Amino acid sequence: MNSPYSDAAYGFLFTDMYQFTMAQLYWRLGMHEKQVQFDHFFRGYPDYGSHQAGYCICAGLEWVVDWMEKSRFGEAERDYLAAQTSRSGDGLFQKEFLDWLSKEGDFSGITLDAVGEGRVVHPDVPLTVVTGPLAMAQVLETPLLNQINYQTLVATKASRILESARGGMLLEFGLRRAQERGANAGARAALVGGASFTSNVALSRMMDLPAKGTHGHSMVQLFLALGAEEIDAFRAYAEVYPDDCLLLVDTIDTLQSGVPNAIRVFEELRRKGHEPMGIRLDSGDLAYLSIQAARMLDEAGFPETGIVLSNNLDELVVWQIVTQISEEAPRYGVDADRLIRRLSYGVGTRLISSWGEPALGGVYKLVAVKDKNRWKPAIKRTETAEKTTNPGEKKVWRIYDSRGKATADLIGLAEESLDGVDPLVLVHPEDAARRRTIPAASISGTEELLERVWAGGRLLRPHPDLEELRQTRRKDVDRLDAGVRRLMYPHIYHVSLTPRLWDLKRELLAACAEGLKNKETE
Amino acid sequence: MNSPYSDAAYGFLFTDMYQFTMAQLYWRLGMHEKQVQFDHFFRGYPDYGSHQAGYCICAGLEWVVDWMEKSRFGEAERDYLAAQTSRSGDGLFQKEFLDWLSKEGDFSGITLDAVGEGRVVHPDVPLTVVTGPLAMAQVLETPLLNQINYQTLVATKASRILESARGGMLLEFGLRRAQERGANAGARAALVGGASFTSNVALSRMMDLPAKGTHGHSMVQLFLALGAEEIDAFRAYAEVYPDDCLLLVDTIDTLQSGVPNAIRVFEELRRKGHEPMGIRLDSGDLAYLSIQAARMLDEAGFPETGIVLSNNLDELVVWQIVTQISEEAPRYGVDADRLIRRLSYGVGTRLISSWGEPALGGVYKLVAVKDKNRWKPAIKRTETAEKTTNPGEKKVWRIYDSRGKATADLIGLAEESLDGVDPLVLVHPEDAARRRTIPAASISGTEELLERVWAGGRLLRPHPDLEELRQTRRKDVDRLDAGVRRLMYPHIYHVSLTPRLWDLKRELLAACAEGLKNKETE
Repeated sequence: MNSPYSDAAYGFLFTDMYQFTMAQLYWRLGMHEKQVQFDHFFRGYPDYGSHQAGYCICAGLEWVVDWMEKSRFGEAERDYLAAQTSRSGDGLFQKEFLDWLSKEGDFSGITLDAVGEGRVVHPDVPLTVVTGPLAMAQVLETPLLNQINYQTLVATKASRILESARGGMLLEFGLRRAQERGANAGARAALVGGASFTSNVALSRMMDLPAKGTHGHSMVQLFLALGAEEIDAFRAYAEVYPDDCLLLVDTIDTLQSGVPNAIRVFEELRRKGHEPMGIRLDSGDLAYLSIQAARMLDEAGFPETGIVLSNNLDELVVWQIVTQISEEAPRYGVDADRLIRRLSYGVGTRLISSWGEPALGGVYKLVAVKDKNRWKPAIKRTETAEKTTNPGEKKVWRIYDSRGKATADLIGLAEESLDGVDPLVLVHPEDAARRRTIPAASISGTEELLERVWAGGRLLRPHPDLEELRQTRRKDVDRLDAGVRRLMYPHIYHVSLTPRLWDLKRELLAACAEGLKNKETE
Repeated sequence: MNSPYSDAAYGFLFTDMYQFTMAQLYWRLGMHEKQVQFDHFFRGYPDYGSHQAGYCICAGLEWVVDWMEKSRFGEAERDYLAAQTSRSGDGLFQKEFLDWLSKEGDFSGITLDAVGEGRVVHPDVPLTVVTGPLAMAQVLETPLLNQINYQTLVATKASRILESARGGMLLEFGLRRAQERGANAGARAALVGGASFTSNVALSRMMDLPAKGTHGHSMVQLFLALGAEEIDAFRAYAEVYPDDCLLLVDTIDTLQSGVPNAIRVFEELRRKGHEPMGIRLDSGDLAYLSIQAARMLDEAGFPETGIVLSNNLDELVVWQIVTQISEEAPRYGVDADRLIRRLSYGVGTRLISSWGEPALGGVYKLVAVKDKNRWKPAIKRTETAEKTTNPGEKKVWRIYDSRGKATADLIGLAEESLDGVDPLVLVHPEDAARRRTIPAASISGTEELLERVWAGGRLLRPHPDLEELRQTRRKDVDRLDAGVRRLMYPHIYHVSLTPRLWDLKRELLAACAEGLKNKETE
């Protein structure tokens, strides 16, 4: 049974145990089909230590829906839960509860509203809103968080690396350093967030993309061990892949051996009517080596030949490489901007693991319960104001200023509308005294961020394809202020509440405090 | 096609593209079945920033072997590769190469030697040695690194947290913050490394373990939203789970509301003949709250009731909690050691993501090639001495000193033996001048670390079960010096070479340097 190769390994049981213990409790109380609403949101941007995100790119929704469609409470699932015992030795789960799960254990009763994949998102704004029967909404919590937390984290990192690359291309190379099978979700998220291709063949197949790669050091090493030379390895590669010849040039010595050998092979290729694709640098001072390699390639008549960089890259390293090239390339007679656009970045470990902040703290909080046909807002009061949830059924609008830039996300009650509201009042989520007032005349547009994607057991619109997701991302990132896109200490984007949502929050908090005070004086 | 629910998604193509382009190149040269040897090892312990590992716990081997057994080059795989084109528009892969993969694309020709799971391991020591036909050894590189890098990383973190807990129990709670499906491998590794249980139901099923959990804040919140109180939620839980009653007490206020309500419910339970299981604290100063909660439970007659802590824990936080309890508990009349043993730790994000160092830099390097029936050692020369590989077919011994503690791992040539060697000479891997000499009389034992686990297409011994892996880990950790186990700035364990391996390395490096020099003067 101890094998990851079964449907049950990633199906209905791919959730936390307490979802089932809570579900049975609700079932015993006859509350398991009570309608509830949960918001899924994150509380802060990734902080990588030496640099910080000022926006995130939402990703993972399609695979959550996929999980909802494919996961069933079948025999394997039932057998496991039926075998669980309490400390008394009795079965932990009642047969009748398991019968109910066998019959009703699917997600057809769930309604899912979500911010689309590829969109720019910010803290405290619900990325998904799950409405439906209590027991199934609980079971869904863990897989939904698992998928969207991680894919959003990686899509965000990819977008940052792409921005640092200033026109260079990003390639995802992280399969060997990922959390096992999570590599596929990570590569997909990287593609949504900014990578053009991935080296991961299985995931490329799923995305209907060509997989990318060159050759490893081992190929050159092998030739050396057999008494041949680096150039023999290069020639062999060029022979087999004359139109896709990309050579890794740092196995022996990049500038003394690798680049000169590559150029000789490229000249031979050209004589046979083929244009070389490029070289890859995987060690050393990548900025300096790029400049020198570009100069050597230019001088040899290969100004269009690409240069792929790899070796522990992330947005900060890429930014430093680009900056160093800008400053130093002219000194060697190399056009810096041309060189920068000529570069590609193969990013492995630090993209797929979101180095510096390897998990997004997305949470799933109860915000409303339907009782006697009326939705009652729920709140979680905590010691810190920032961790208090926004109660009730809600809407989210993105507000664009007169330049067409996104200036704030505004969270309000579901029954609110912005039609005719002038001026717009934006309340700070923790401090009602901090309000921002925007006259309607200086708003170029507003749009609702949440859209309904799943109801009645089916998808309400086809999933956008990868190219659409990328367009969504580019459009959204373009509409961010430069300050928000800054690599370090970005400007904080405004996420605000409508006055009515703020009032509801205050009322509920006051009621909580009152309840607690009564308790203390009991 | 864009769905993670297919066998192809994690099968033979779950590798990097360059493995296939290199494989075809070797096939074209008739070298694809040439026998080669690759070592898989990591170069440095995880450094979490504020603390550092001084040893690792090896994990992931069983799932690698599982992948080798189940992955086939079938139709889906073939169709994808056959559809790949070069820049000229021609097919990238030749039909005859794909025919060969269809026929021979499995791992029956691979021989795998490995350090057992659960064992303590150190940098530069091969965790696995892959011997076999070149093309298939390349395809295996990525999935092998993917699996063992990650599981070793998490098993290591789990072992560190368990050590910090000084007798407390570790529970793995990270499913929602993992890299998607990698959560299962992460939970498994945590179980090997030190966790007693996990909340992940699917993985618990695979490991034939009960899954653990309590209830979430949402349960209490739901009761509150419906006009009921925290104690009603607790009573409902106790009613359904009288013998497994573990209550989350921080939804409203831990000491004012949660603990007193839990105690009332525990008293009611006891009157009905059931003993409560415990409480969970998920926010605030966990050390202080543990002491106060323990005092309240003790005074109410529940000195055996457990206390589960959660909320962004890792080895450093656990160590601080334990230290603070040691210092402060006596002041409140609470026995610190008793309280420390009474605690359990539910660790999520920071265990499954290996917070601070989210990837282990394990690499896979060519060390030998068989040419004309003779193994030729291969070396990768790099700018830095530390990154130069250890060439050739090798053996690894662990040396135990007179106290029975592991004092060094010694890497030597395959044909070497330690029988009758006195004294043992250990050479520093980068600096031959640094030698350590150990008289045989002060060695209590030596053991070979690598064992053959896979050959001829089958497993040579059954995989150890979880309890055996845990015993292996406990035994190995017990045999480490306290200095090596230290949470911060641990003492560096010796990994050394035999003089003969050192001599081979020096010869090969000299030959490389000579080759390069000839090149420069050409």
